[in-house]
Amino acid sequence: MLHWLRQYRRAMLPGDISAGIVVAMMMIPQGMAYALVAGLPPVAGIYASILPPVLYALFGSSMTQSVGPMAIVALMTAAVIGPLAPAGSALYGVLAAQLALVAGVVLLLCGALRMGFLANFFSRPVMSGFTVGSVVIIAAGQVKPLLGATLPAFHAPSAVLGGVSLLLLVLGKRYAAGLLRRCGLPAAHAELGARLVPMLVVLAATAAVPQLGLQALGIQTTGAVPSGLPQLNLATSSSHWRALLQPGLLIGFIIFLLSMSAAQSLALKRNEKLVANQELFGLGAANVASMVSGGFPVTGGMSRSAVNFSAGANTPLASIITSGLLTLALLAPTGWLALLPLPTLAATIIVAVLGLLEFDTLRMAWRYDRGDAAAWGATAAGVLALGVEAGVVVGVLLSMGTLIWRASRPHIAVLGRIPGSEHYRNIERYRAETQAEVLVLRIDANLFFGNVEAVGERIEDELRAHPSARHLVLAMTAVSSIDTTALFALSEWNAGMRRRGVALHLAEVKGPVLDRLRQSDLLQQLSGPIFLSTAMACNALQEGREGGMAEHI
Amino acid sequence: MLHWLRQYRRAMLPGDISAGIVVAMMMIPQGMAYALVAGLPPVAGIYASILPPVLYALFGSSMTQSVGPMAIVALMTAAVIGPLAPAGSALYGVLAAQLALVAGVVLLLCGALRMGFLANFFSRPVMSGFTVGSVVIIAAGQVKPLLGATLPAFHAPSAVLGGVSLLLLVLGKRYAAGLLRRCGLPAAHAELGARLVPMLVVLAATAAVPQLGLQALGIQTTGAVPSGLPQLNLATSSSHWRALLQPGLLIGFIIFLLSMSAAQSLALKRNEKLVANQELFGLGAANVASMVSGGFPVTGGMSRSAVNFSAGANTPLASIITSGLLTLALLAPTGWLALLPLPTLAATIIVAVLGLLEFDTLRMAWRYDRGDAAAWGATAAGVLALGVEAGVVVGVLLSMGTLIWRASRPHIAVLGRIPGSEHYRNIERYRAETQAEVLVLRIDANLFFGNVEAVGERIEDELRAHPSARHLVLAMTAVSSIDTTALFALSEWNAGMRRRGVALHLAEVKGPVLDRLRQSDLLQQLSGPIFLSTAMACNALQEGREGGMAEHI
Repeated sequence: MLHWLRQYRRAMLPGDISAGIVVAMMMIPQGMAYALVAGLPPVAGIYASILPPVLYALFGSSMTQSVGPMAIVALMTAAVIGPLAPAGSALYGVLAAQLALVAGVVLLLCGALRMGFLANFFSRPVMSGFTVGSVVIIAAGQVKPLLGATLPAFHAPSAVLGGVSLLLLVLGKRYAAGLLRRCGLPAAHAELGARLVPMLVVLAATAAVPQLGLQALGIQTTGAVPSGLPQLNLATSSSHWRALLQPGLLIGFIIFLLSMSAAQSLALKRNEKLVANQELFGLGAANVASMVSGGFPVTGGMSRSAVNFSAGANTPLASIITSGLLTLALLAPTGWLALLPLPTLAATIIVAVLGLLEFDTLRMAWRYDRGDAAAWGATAAGVLALGVEAGVVVGVLLSMGTLIWRASRPHIAVLGRIPGSEHYRNIERYRAETQAEVLVLRIDANLFFGNVEAVGERIEDELRAHPSARHLVLAMTAVSSIDTTALFALSEWNAGMRRRGVALHLAEVKGPVLDRLRQSDLLQQLSGPIFLSTAMACNALQEGREGGMAEHI
Repeated sequence: MLHWLRQYRRAMLPGDISAGIVVAMMMIPQGMAYALVAGLPPVAGIYASILPPVLYALFGSSMTQSVGPMAIVALMTAAVIGPLAPAGSALYGVLAAQLALVAGVVLLLCGALRMGFLANFFSRPVMSGFTVGSVVIIAAGQVKPLLGATLPAFHAPSAVLGGVSLLLLVLGKRYAAGLLRRCGLPAAHAELGARLVPMLVVLAATAAVPQLGLQALGIQTTGAVPSGLPQLNLATSSSHWRALLQPGLLIGFIIFLLSMSAAQSLALKRNEKLVANQELFGLGAANVASMVSGGFPVTGGMSRSAVNFSAGANTPLASIITSGLLTLALLAPTGWLALLPLPTLAATIIVAVLGLLEFDTLRMAWRYDRGDAAAWGATAAGVLALGVEAGVVVGVLLSMGTLIWRASRPHIAVLGRIPGSEHYRNIERYRAETQAEVLVLRIDANLFFGNVEAVGERIEDELRAHPSARHLVLAMTAVSSIDTTALFALSEWNAGMRRRGVALHLAEVKGPVLDRLRQSDLLQQLSGPIFLSTAMACNALQEGREGGMAEHI
């Protein structure tokens, strides 16, 4: 905590200040837009951008992560709170803040239990499919505010404003940086300048509202934004806590996944070390803070963190500067924020979330591993068909399903002796000699609940194919762990084989695995000793003196 | 399908007939009791015992599995239907049958998609914890019918009858076999005879009802059982289908897990081969049949299948005989079934489910692997605290969590050369020489989404500890697969290292892994060739001629 402050050097300050300013400029329109996605008044997005980054700065481990409202988490918030409270009601806001609290407490608990390994629960294709599905839902949800009416109808003035905003944003995204470079700006500055296009478009549209009398034309605006700092939003309803528990778990999980994937890709660029368990604390504290300040669940987002990074952020001080600037913005007269036209905000959201789309993962997976490509498609389809909450569950199940499916086809080789040597090799690849009475199998996987059945079946198949075998030697060179399920299976295989007159033996058991096995009854159950090497096993068993080998290796 | 019929020999018949009779005698009280657990009229338990075993006999792969009502699945049925329909209503029965249909279709679909690997989703400790938690819920739910009132109150006549029934059942379970043996019966027959104690206790109690005027004392009985065969229960409500979808998935999953674990332990004893995908078809067809016959979800249970097995069942013909006998029982006058006293049925349920309790798994896990013991406890606690449905989810998450947690700590060794040889070994275990410029790491795990972060962090740590390294060689001897997530990670590690002036190399890549990698861009991105051996890599890199090696190995 604050270890970065002790090592702070003055040379870091300019980068942090410029990043702080750029992110603040970007977060005013984006925070408001994501609040709309979450079904909240736009100012909640600014509230959620002030306290959380400060808390993250105190407890998190990433130097460049920027924490605040994020599109996918906002979508999940809307999916959770929507069925519980009418949109726009005070209860809706209270529940959204409570959801942040639940998610925050979940994250803090996971941190205290050192459950940072949870970040590894999604495979990259699943995460990518989840993101793409969510982006489609978010963008589709903005078509109505963009056009001022539900398709196929549209409200002409709104549609014109929305269309122009969209066009400017897309053009700005594509050409602004090049234009600024041609105006003489250094490349890095030009990139940053281009990031301010959304802010300028929003400002221009807002100025146009009173200037051109757009409200009279029926274009909707955000409405009054309360000036001053948010009030502490004390939880009032108690019956809703239970309804928020399970969604809070899911959102906490997604907050962690999204933040970790953003922070990891940035940490890699600067060779910084990220501590998953500390990230859990940082994100947990940020979400609790978001609840206190009347916000909604927050996370570290890829787009905002990348801006923070490329604007020169060296330490979390940049985020604290952003917070300070947003506080000033709220203390200044906020009347103009009421005039922000919704079609323009919708255009901002669409362009921002389309930036999250990436199909590289799908393309690569399609070429490299069709199973992973199918997981991508199934996750995206799951999000679209069942919603973003169920999509998380689908994603976890698919990641785990792929894993178990792969585990259920372990590689197992029948070994034979290379003539004239003591080497035992896969008989399918080498010309190797086998013995009629001694069957040797090498198991090329750790033994655990996901593959014991498959291993057991393969052993049975091989014993059927080698009916004269009286000894089965399992060469355990590649087995680094045996879980409790596999321990029971070994014991059952041993008993089953003994009934049929086949003795089970283990060879080349790794030290740590053997230490573990000594704490079980398995070694006493086996017919013979554990052999140091496959060659020793085969020689001893062939000569019928299996009792003579030392068990301790 | 029916392959057993083609190989049927007359010698198999006596065993099948005796097993068919014993299981039928056992299933009349047990089926009725489990129907009560499911919240259904007792006759539904007999309905569910007739058609499903016949369908399973046609499509399943186990020779000795007996399919029908089972305690845990009955409990889940009650948990699902309870909130949807009032107990005892016609709707309740229709929904229970529909739930069987949904579960059956899920199982058939999983079979068609060859998803038999799903049986590997639960570790044994998680399955054991799930069973124990469910047993406690079922037994606790029977205390009220056993005593005729809710504790601390009790209805004296009911409590006396329940207590006596419980005592007789426990004594019968413990001593009947011994007693029969002492009466001169062979051990195997004595065991089977003891299995009929529940039937005798239920018959005695039923006879006592009119004899002793128990109904006048206020002891409740099952009530009128319709004679004749069940009517086809056509699904009438449509709005409930959606409510049954997710629970149907969960129940289908548990049906499969319970049945597979029962079938596997029996198949092992007779050296039979079980085909997971065919089991899915068998169980799916059985559940669809259960819907047709007005039953509820069914599965292959350990206790009934073990009885079937030890009563001599050689083929599924035994189950067909059971079905025939139960049909006859329904066609005979069923008036006496109405007099079955509920306290006695409750005692039957309690004794039956307590037989499912086993603490060997917990004991072994506690000695062998505390993480697995914790998973056991957490699953049991999850079932008790959140209910049996949520308990399944908790179980899946815990199995997967243990898996990912273990995967997130892969073994990685720094290798050095054994002086005077070409062998490279772990420098922590051998006196081996390292080179200042070439760092060699051996990754002892398959690379996949669950461990890439941990591997990446370890690589960073080692590079920090060896700042003079200009080349990093990853020895891939133990890597049998690289998934898409890990492929991206390798590509990112390569780019990140290159920025810092370190070249990434791979050595000893297995054939199938290399074939896969050729379908990606990774090999083009790497600075040098893939080395056939670690020694070749080190020699070439030390001499600065890394370009000279052949890539194709």
